[in-house]
Amino acid sequence: MSTTTRILGIDPGLRITGFGIIDKTGQKLAYVTSGCIRSNEKDSLPLRLKTLLDGISEVIAAHQPDEAAIEKVFVNVNPQSTLLLGQARGAAIAALVLAGLPVAEYTALQIKQAVVGHGKAAKEQVSHMVTRLLQLPGEPSADAADALACAICHAHGGQLGSMATQGYRVKNGRLV
Amino acid sequence: MSTTTRILGIDPGLRITGFGIIDKTGQKLAYVTSGCIRSNEKDSLPLRLKTLLDGISEVIAAHQPDEAAIEKVFVNVNPQSTLLLGQARGAAIAALVLAGLPVAEYTALQIKQAVVGHGKAAKEQVSHMVTRLLQLPGEPSADAADALACAICHAHGGQLGSMATQGYRVKNGRLV
Repeated sequence: MSTTTRILGIDPGLRITGFGIIDKTGQKLAYVTSGCIRSNEKDSLPLRLKTLLDGISEVIAAHQPDEAAIEKVFVNVNPQSTLLLGQARGAAIAALVLAGLPVAEYTALQIKQAVVGHGKAAKEQVSHMVTRLLQLPGEPSADAADALACAICHAHGGQLGSMATQGYRVKNGRLV
Repeated sequence: MSTTTRILGIDPGLRITGFGIIDKTGQKLAYVTSGCIRSNEKDSLPLRLKTLLDGISEVIAAHQPDEAAIEKVFVNVNPQSTLLLGQARGAAIAALVLAGLPVAEYTALQIKQAVVGHGKAAKEQVSHMVTRLLQLPGEPSADAADALACAICHAHGGQLGSMATQGYRVKNGRLV
């Protein structure tokens, strides 16, 4: 008998934050849920961050994940956008740590390596592999797919990526 | 009889977040408390944000402010610093909105105008005026002084600054 670990992946953004939850039992991954939290651009920043916080807290309350993984964000060409993204990510992490979840961080490179097998994968390839690995009936929205990919990266211990670059290949989420 | 409004001012930062609380009764301002929350640079970002969150939550629980004011931050020459500061500010706002506090935002310019009377005031002038306006026995630490200045700016309705630039002068917190 294997225990099941429920993982919440987050793709942070001020306008749209994607979330995705998977169950890991041994090496098996199962889709639980995914979606997006959208903030209203007409609201003040504190209100928008509250929407984000409340949304993540609701997802946690409804699905009781054991661990969380969040995508590391990078500096944007536009410093103002970097600042806004940073604030959204700070609020998202706040929601996770307030719920007592351990929070792991992965770069987009690590996530792509873990899910697609190489770090230069296009967004569509990530979405496609997420759909295959979790046997979804259809492709999730872009933000939900990125969040699920982050959860999958964490389920693989964030290690598959570095192994994949050492001559291994990933097929259906397994090293071949 | 005037009602008293308790205002929590926050000067956000990842390494050090300053806080300052004042009571406003009519036009009278009274110092309540101030201090700093420091995160451990050796901790992971999620843990550092948790330190910040927990610290602000404790201050709120202990002193029960009615309203909050937080300094707007600006993009740094170093984009990575901008990102870190953004995340700290996002977590700080999260702590405020979670406590149900209305959150007002003021730029450094607005704060300096409200406290010193012009936007080009040096940090030492701000600290000096905060000490005088609140009749403190000694100057607070730089981060606490900035947080108290932010609270004072909010107490003045964020309006004093713009009036001060229209030919008024600020003396002991009053227009003269």
